[in-house]
Amino acid sequence: MPYTPITSTQNNKVKLAVKLRGKRGRDQESRFLVDYHRDMERALHHGYQLDFALYCEALASEDDNVLVTALPNHRVYEVPESVMQKAAYRQNPGGILGVMHQKAVPHIQQMTAHDKPLLGLVNLQKPGNIGALLRTADATGFTTLLIDTTLDLYNPNIIRSSTGTCFLDTIYHATTQEAIDFFRQNAYRVISAHLDGTTSLFDTILTGRSAIILGTEDIGLDAIWVSHCDTLVKIPMIGHIADSLNVSVSGAVFMYEALRQRLATT
Amino acid sequence: MPYTPITSTQNNKVKLAVKLRGKRGRDQESRFLVDYHRDMERALHHGYQLDFALYCEALASEDDNVLVTALPNHRVYEVPESVMQKAAYRQNPGGILGVMHQKAVPHIQQMTAHDKPLLGLVNLQKPGNIGALLRTADATGFTTLLIDTTLDLYNPNIIRSSTGTCFLDTIYHATTQEAIDFFRQNAYRVISAHLDGTTSLFDTILTGRSAIILGTEDIGLDAIWVSHCDTLVKIPMIGHIADSLNVSVSGAVFMYEALRQRLATT
Repeated sequence: MPYTPITSTQNNKVKLAVKLRGKRGRDQESRFLVDYHRDMERALHHGYQLDFALYCEALASEDDNVLVTALPNHRVYEVPESVMQKAAYRQNPGGILGVMHQKAVPHIQQMTAHDKPLLGLVNLQKPGNIGALLRTADATGFTTLLIDTTLDLYNPNIIRSSTGTCFLDTIYHATTQEAIDFFRQNAYRVISAHLDGTTSLFDTILTGRSAIILGTEDIGLDAIWVSHCDTLVKIPMIGHIADSLNVSVSGAVFMYEALRQRLATT
Repeated sequence: MPYTPITSTQNNKVKLAVKLRGKRGRDQESRFLVDYHRDMERALHHGYQLDFALYCEALASEDDNVLVTALPNHRVYEVPESVMQKAAYRQNPGGILGVMHQKAVPHIQQMTAHDKPLLGLVNLQKPGNIGALLRTADATGFTTLLIDTTLDLYNPNIIRSSTGTCFLDTIYHATTQEAIDFFRQNAYRVISAHLDGTTSLFDTILTGRSAIILGTEDIGLDAIWVSHCDTLVKIPMIGHIADSLNVSVSGAVFMYEALRQRLATT
């Protein structure tokens, strides 16, 4: 069955897509863009609702075509390349662009399972790093806590670099004080890397109720977190120049050491 | 002493800087741009020669000012903001932009110390990943082998994301065949992550003469490398979605596991 065509870049649906490229537009509309078939499939699989999709046959891959036939017919609009170029976030768009409804990121108090290790991200800025950390957190069985009041999980670059793991329900949010209270009430060990750390990463117990806290590379961790850490960890570095790591790398090194320890004790 | 001023964007030095923003220009001129004081300091410290620097007082940080006074006076040209905007690679340039002479990346046959583990990068594409891998390789004491005939180590995004570790003399290049011959002649164990891998990362011996080979995320490793690996490794993943990792993350997980094993045996 043919899809309803949209041929004008002035169409309201196209205008909405353009609006959703920016954080303010996403906040206002409580919707977001997904521009890659894998990520859209993962969003749908994890309970996100599709508002509508723009589909451009000339730009579509085989995977795009498989996905589009699985979508409700009346929610798909066929567009020419010019309209897709206008609507999409990226410069070389694919054949499908979904507008989806956001879900509220649950609050830390709604977290029920406390047997998983926690990754706390404090005011990280770069979408590529945040996405890579969410991806590694999923791979290693970590629950992620966004200790940040402004982070937009539906930034297109977070979606892409997280390979859709941003859609998981293992992501929570909290303010700094809420997170600190939660860790104390639930007897978490709070751990962070620090230049002044004295315990080597490889001598740090990362099993059980551990919370690994990461701050930005440039500024480092807030003083309040440093004072609330049970262990300040030194990640060993033996090189000529590098005196720090990319934050997505240091997070991964922590999470895989934690996984190694857990697998070794089971 | 005041610096020689350049006020026109048509000046030959400014035109050269613009040319060096692209790979073709860098290849032709055997020079490259450095736009961050830390990276320029690291290049100078590792024997790179400065051709000239553009300096813009209005944009300069304290660190830029410290650096510029350490440079030979006659190689510094003072420019207004408009000229710096024109010449620089990035949209919001800092106060200093260096034009430096390239050094030839040494060939694998020039490698003398064979007691260090090796990281082999096979045709990686994304500068951010390559830079992060060089940074982690330095931190963990790995020598890096660029198994790639086209990689431009002086891409501004590699320089920045490597935090200047791209200037180290622990980086070599080789073709695939040269690398394979070298590993065989020097009795390296060749190791790579693979979806079909049966040995867990944590059960893989990564001490001694090990070479860890990384391919692109999208395409994976060439068949020739898969057939020449002594061990195909499975990086454990226990999550809901993530069935692979960012390549800079999987490389880091390998390198830190190798460092852990080395520190445990000494």
